[in-house]
Amino acid sequence: MEWEDIFASRAMRMRASEIRELLKLLEQPDIISFAGGIPDVALFPKDAVASAYKEVLTGPEALAALQYSISEGYRPLRDWIVGEMAKIGITCTADNVFITSGSQQVLDYLGKLLLSPTDTALVTWPTYLGALSAFNAYEPNYDRLTPLSNRPAASYVEEAEKKGGRVKFAYCVPEFHNPTGVTMTRAEREWLLDLGRDLDIALIEDAAYQSLRFDGETVAPILALDIERNGGDIEKTRTLYCGSFSKTLAPGLRIGWVVGAQEVIRKLVLIKQAADLHSSTINQMVIAKVAGSIFDEQVAKIRKAYSHRRTKMLEALAKFMPAGVEWTKPEGGMFVWVTLPEGMDGAKLLARSLETAKVAFVPGQAFFADGSGRNTMRLSFSCASDEMIEEGIGRLGALIASEVAAAA
Amino acid sequence: MEWEDIFASRAMRMRASEIRELLKLLEQPDIISFAGGIPDVALFPKDAVASAYKEVLTGPEALAALQYSISEGYRPLRDWIVGEMAKIGITCTADNVFITSGSQQVLDYLGKLLLSPTDTALVTWPTYLGALSAFNAYEPNYDRLTPLSNRPAASYVEEAEKKGGRVKFAYCVPEFHNPTGVTMTRAEREWLLDLGRDLDIALIEDAAYQSLRFDGETVAPILALDIERNGGDIEKTRTLYCGSFSKTLAPGLRIGWVVGAQEVIRKLVLIKQAADLHSSTINQMVIAKVAGSIFDEQVAKIRKAYSHRRTKMLEALAKFMPAGVEWTKPEGGMFVWVTLPEGMDGAKLLARSLETAKVAFVPGQAFFADGSGRNTMRLSFSCASDEMIEEGIGRLGALIASEVAAAA
Repeated sequence: MEWEDIFASRAMRMRASEIRELLKLLEQPDIISFAGGIPDVALFPKDAVASAYKEVLTGPEALAALQYSISEGYRPLRDWIVGEMAKIGITCTADNVFITSGSQQVLDYLGKLLLSPTDTALVTWPTYLGALSAFNAYEPNYDRLTPLSNRPAASYVEEAEKKGGRVKFAYCVPEFHNPTGVTMTRAEREWLLDLGRDLDIALIEDAAYQSLRFDGETVAPILALDIERNGGDIEKTRTLYCGSFSKTLAPGLRIGWVVGAQEVIRKLVLIKQAADLHSSTINQMVIAKVAGSIFDEQVAKIRKAYSHRRTKMLEALAKFMPAGVEWTKPEGGMFVWVTLPEGMDGAKLLARSLETAKVAFVPGQAFFADGSGRNTMRLSFSCASDEMIEEGIGRLGALIASEVAAAA
Repeated sequence: MEWEDIFASRAMRMRASEIRELLKLLEQPDIISFAGGIPDVALFPKDAVASAYKEVLTGPEALAALQYSISEGYRPLRDWIVGEMAKIGITCTADNVFITSGSQQVLDYLGKLLLSPTDTALVTWPTYLGALSAFNAYEPNYDRLTPLSNRPAASYVEEAEKKGGRVKFAYCVPEFHNPTGVTMTRAEREWLLDLGRDLDIALIEDAAYQSLRFDGETVAPILALDIERNGGDIEKTRTLYCGSFSKTLAPGLRIGWVVGAQEVIRKLVLIKQAADLHSSTINQMVIAKVAGSIFDEQVAKIRKAYSHRRTKMLEALAKFMPAGVEWTKPEGGMFVWVTLPEGMDGAKLLARSLETAKVAFVPGQAFFADGSGRNTMRLSFSCASDEMIEEGIGRLGALIASEVAAAA
């Protein structure tokens, strides 16, 4: 039958992300890869997870762990999250917390809840590619979010109306941004809250990397600032804080969460009920056990390992990159963002790098909603050893230097 | 902030299902409940599941089990499903199989892939409530599927066009239908395939209860008949077969699957990649281990238990129901569908039953896309003991008899 003929228009927007295709390509063993933005398996709390499954399946909740459960999520896990949120200034109750299958699912559900086709979503240029993929299913337009710019709020409205819709939300990754590694300052967060107020839109705070700070000053979450602005009342806020266990405990269990005003949380729960009923009952119980016992030490362990790799990578970049190449200095997370000399193309550089230098990275263009950013690339240090970094950045620097020389 | 003001129109369709609210109400210990359509926890293969988690987390795939994985699903599990499908006449390869977080998620993704607002979905009156919930997010209209009727195909097209869209698919639960317990005959399946061909639409075969046959003759799956019509080539078929481990192994792990032409499977994989990346890696591995070792004996155990309960319930209905009440005689599954005398209202009956007889069931109206079916109700026998059935159906029969007498 002619399937193309009956697909909904939104299905036409769906295509395999270039990054995903790239990652498949990079499974060749002779390539030094800084491409994958994934946690290091060697740091997973395997023993704690194994003990937790055993405990759950031999304990009083064993049968409940295998049964259907409520769409809101496992209550003890929501209670644990309430406690963690309180530590970073987010005062909420379990009714403000909703458990999802990874924080990627929150982005999909927020797109589903908020976006009609032709509506506008505000995102930074560049932004997390997975957020664009999730939102694309709901056929929005994108406009550029530029913190601290003087662009008047009215101009966002105007642009959105030209495209036949409304601005519905601004999306950002305030800590150790994927792909740039940069953290939003307090002033930028206040600017965003002002913009949210002026446009009366939702703010989506993607806090996937929030726990992974190595150094520098902690900045209050946007939701914490929003609560503060509203006299301590989360029910009056416009910010949805999306959290994840994928970077701290393990992504394979697919457990994340979102915190926000109950009016939104209740709608998201209904979406989940219709879409996949609930996240895995047993995995929620296991995450609750593991988080409840070893979360802080596990996070300390990861921070230490990634911090070392971040430092090594920054040192190697300083040592090997030619003049004209710039990069960010992340205080946490998994990524360094490199800006190549104007005119150089990250995708072409990758093609040559895979042939000659045998080093992989992600060309930056994929992270731009408008397809700009050709002269950028993302380097991930989360799975890199000292040797890989020294050797890989060395080769990459030499390749870039030869390209710069050839262009001169 | 004014959330209602920025919700997408699809969000307005989402509301808590009456059944869900009802189920909460029924947690009172003095109620005999035939309401919940869930498997009996006492039959879960707890020990096999516990061993499988242990094996996975102490075996060579332990770290991979906790890491991100591909959106298509764990290959050994897809291979196992290919083998099972072959046994029921569905010849396919692992590329035709896609793993999801329960078969509910397949329904959501198929709605996302196929439905534009104002399009029409064909469903039986009544149909699975969760399918209506999943599809509702994509704002379709519904038209009534009446197998073996003489209604011309052109009239479906006409009705859909009147409502500004096209017919995109027909959805059915061919085995032991939820809510009616009825199985589609071979002739009805052939009729559906003819209609699918005439309208050039997709057919969604929800096979959640397929393994739970107690007696009677097995009927070939619609996808098997479709493959047969297409000379053995699944790539030419229009049927998407949705399977689930929730009724056979355990729902708490949230693992289901869909089988169909690769052109559709590839699109569904892209949808998943954008929506939640992949289903829990470790749970897929565990299901593969458990299914690979004890599937047949587990299914035999469940069939035996549910078959006994089905028989007891049919006997009790015959013994206690007054004249004018009719019910289905399911050959498998979890449900019996009761038709009350014309004019009697299932919802009002439930309200009285909870007060006096202390017996719960689900009023049938919720399963009708057009809100008809007032004089029907669904009884589930999956979690009922002999004593519950004898006592509960006895009380319910007496209540209905008194209502009939009062109305006369």
